[in-house]
Amino acid sequence: MKRIDVQASVPYTITVGRGLLSAVDMPESRRVLIYDEGLPGSLVEHVRRRLQTELNLAVPSGDACKTLDVYGTLLSRLAGAALARDAAVIGLGGGATTDLAGFVAASYLRGVAFYTLPTTLLAQVDAAVGGKTGLNLPEGKNLVGAFWNPRGVWCDVDTLESLPEHIFREGASEVFKHGLLTSGALCEQVLAPGFGASASNLAEVVADAVQVKVDVVVRDPTEQGERAFLNFGHTLAHALEAVTRHALSHGEAVGYGMHFAALLSRAQGGEDLTPLTSRFLSYLKPSRLPEHLTWEHLEPFIARDKKADRSGMRFVLLRRIGQPYLERLGEDQLRDVFNLWRAQMRAVVQ
Amino acid sequence: MKRIDVQASVPYTITVGRGLLSAVDMPESRRVLIYDEGLPGSLVEHVRRRLQTELNLAVPSGDACKTLDVYGTLLSRLAGAALARDAAVIGLGGGATTDLAGFVAASYLRGVAFYTLPTTLLAQVDAAVGGKTGLNLPEGKNLVGAFWNPRGVWCDVDTLESLPEHIFREGASEVFKHGLLTSGALCEQVLAPGFGASASNLAEVVADAVQVKVDVVVRDPTEQGERAFLNFGHTLAHALEAVTRHALSHGEAVGYGMHFAALLSRAQGGEDLTPLTSRFLSYLKPSRLPEHLTWEHLEPFIARDKKADRSGMRFVLLRRIGQPYLERLGEDQLRDVFNLWRAQMRAVVQ
Repeated sequence: MKRIDVQASVPYTITVGRGLLSAVDMPESRRVLIYDEGLPGSLVEHVRRRLQTELNLAVPSGDACKTLDVYGTLLSRLAGAALARDAAVIGLGGGATTDLAGFVAASYLRGVAFYTLPTTLLAQVDAAVGGKTGLNLPEGKNLVGAFWNPRGVWCDVDTLESLPEHIFREGASEVFKHGLLTSGALCEQVLAPGFGASASNLAEVVADAVQVKVDVVVRDPTEQGERAFLNFGHTLAHALEAVTRHALSHGEAVGYGMHFAALLSRAQGGEDLTPLTSRFLSYLKPSRLPEHLTWEHLEPFIARDKKADRSGMRFVLLRRIGQPYLERLGEDQLRDVFNLWRAQMRAVVQ
Repeated sequence: MKRIDVQASVPYTITVGRGLLSAVDMPESRRVLIYDEGLPGSLVEHVRRRLQTELNLAVPSGDACKTLDVYGTLLSRLAGAALARDAAVIGLGGGATTDLAGFVAASYLRGVAFYTLPTTLLAQVDAAVGGKTGLNLPEGKNLVGAFWNPRGVWCDVDTLESLPEHIFREGASEVFKHGLLTSGALCEQVLAPGFGASASNLAEVVADAVQVKVDVVVRDPTEQGERAFLNFGHTLAHALEAVTRHALSHGEAVGYGMHFAALLSRAQGGEDLTPLTSRFLSYLKPSRLPEHLTWEHLEPFIARDKKADRSGMRFVLLRRIGQPYLERLGEDQLRDVFNLWRAQMRAVVQ
C-alpha cells in the first residue's frame, strides 16, 4: 500500500494498493454513494455496507452519466434527503462517474466533501487526481465543471481485475503518457510482456503514474501553465471522441492522439518518438477510426478545445521524453501531419 | 463615485455611483452579456454598445431564470459560439440574473471571468458582493452553485430609478439588515423620510451597505463562521419564499424574517429590537402572508436550510445592534415564537 500526500489548498491523501475498499473511511457521517450501474453488484454492496451510506445513486455507465439531466436528478435526490453541508459525496466507478460525482459535490450547497473510489485504471491514474470535475454538453466534452479537490482517494487495484481487457488497456494510455512526460520508465512498464490487471507490479505502476500527475497538479492546480502538458495527445483525442460520438473511448482516442502529437513533435524538430507511440498502439488495439475521417471533420472541435484561444490552436509537443512544451500550430501544417497520421493509422492498426 | 477594493484571492473593485454604465470596461475582448429580459431596452442597448458584446442572452426576470434548464441553454450558447477560457461573462440585472450569470461563469470550461452590473438595490448591496452564485432546485432555493468572485462590479444607482417602488423597498431589507449587524446608522437612513430611488444620499447609502458586506465576506469568504451572520432574518425568509413559491419576494421575506429573528433574540434575553423591525415592516409594506400559514408548513424548509445540520436548526440572533451570534434552537421554542410572530404580522401589516 502506498500513500501519496497531495499538498492542495486542503491537503489530502491518495492511497494505492490492494484490498483498500475494506479500509475506506471518512469523518462525515451522512454519506451519498454515486456509482456506475455497470459495476459488479457485490462490489457496490461491499462499499455500501462498509460506509453505511444513506443514499445510493446508480448512474449510467461511461459518459452517458455526464449530462445536465443526470446531474439535476442527483442534486434533487440530495436535496430531497435534506442533506446539509456536513454531507459527503463518494464517487465509485470510472472517470465519468467520478467527474459527475465531483461536480455534484462541488456545487451542491456550493460545495460538500468529496471522496473517490476509482475502479478503472484510467480513473485511478488520471480522473481521480487533480480536482477536475464536470459534465459534457451536446456541443462537446467537459465544457462544464469546477475544480474541486477530493478529501481522499482510494485506488484499489483489485477492482481492475473484473474489468474487460480493453477497458484496462485504455487506462494504460494515461500511464504511457505519464511516462512520455517524465523519464520513460512507465512507458517501458506498460510495453513489458505480461502488463495487465493481474500484473504483480500493478500497484507500483499505478502509484508511480499517480505521482507524476500529482507533481504537476500541485505546481499548477488550475491549468495556468505546466498542467496543460498533461494534455499531451488530448487535443486530437477530444476531437476524435466528439466526431465518433464516443464510439472511440477516451483512452483509445488518447492512444491515437499521442501518435499524432509525436508526429507533430518530430515535424517541429523534436526526437522521433513515433516508434514508441506506434508500439503503444499495437498494445492498445484501439477501435477502428471512421472510414472517411478528414481534417475538416476534426478542425471545428480542435478550434473549440480549451487550449485554443483567438491566436490559434495550441498543441502539447515533446522535444524528447520528459521535455514537453506548448506550441501554436498553423492549419496547413496540422492538415499535412494529419494526412500522414491518417495513412499510418490505416497501416498500423487496421 | 466610490470605489471599494475587495481583498479576495483575486482582488477586485466594486464601484458605486451614478452614470457608471457609460464607463464600464474590462480587459477580455470576447464578452457575453446575460441580462434580465424585463430591463428597459434602452439600458440593455446602452451596455451592449458600450461593451461591444459578442453574445447577448436574455433570461426570464427574477427567480424564473435560476433553473437548470436556463443554465443548460446558456452554456450551450457559449459552447456553440466556441468561446474559450479568455471570455468574460457579464451579468446585467437583479440578484437572480447575476446569481445565474455567475454560476455560468464559474462552471463554463471550469471557470471564466465574471463581471456584474447589478440593477436592483437588492443586487447592489447583497447579491453582487461575496461571490455566491447559483440556481434553485424544485426542492429549494440556492441549493446549487459555487463561490466565484467577480473581477469587477459596477453599482450604478441611476439604474434604480426605473424600478417599481416595491422592488426598491425589498432591496432596503438588506440595507436595513446591514444596519442591524453594525452600528444601526443604515437602519436610520432607511427609515428616514424621503429614502428612495431618487434620494440624494443613495450612492453613499449603497456604498456603506456594500462595505458592511465586503468587510464580513473578506474575513470569511466561504461561510465557515462570521459570514453566516449575514443570514440574519434569512432562515425564516427562505422558508417563506419556498412555501409561497416566491409569491413573496426575497426582500419581503427577509423583512418578515428579521422581525421573527428579533422576536427570537428578545426571547433569548437580547435587547428588544422588535420596535425597529416593526417600523421597517411598516416602511416595507410586504405582500400578505398566506392566510393559514402554520409552523408545520415552514419547518421542513427550515430543517433543510444550509445553516441546519444534524444537531438542530440554527438561527442568527442579535444580543443588541451590532452583536450577532449563532444559536441552535429547539422546535418548541421556535413554534411558540412563530405563533407570536404570526399574530403580530396580522396586526402590523395586514
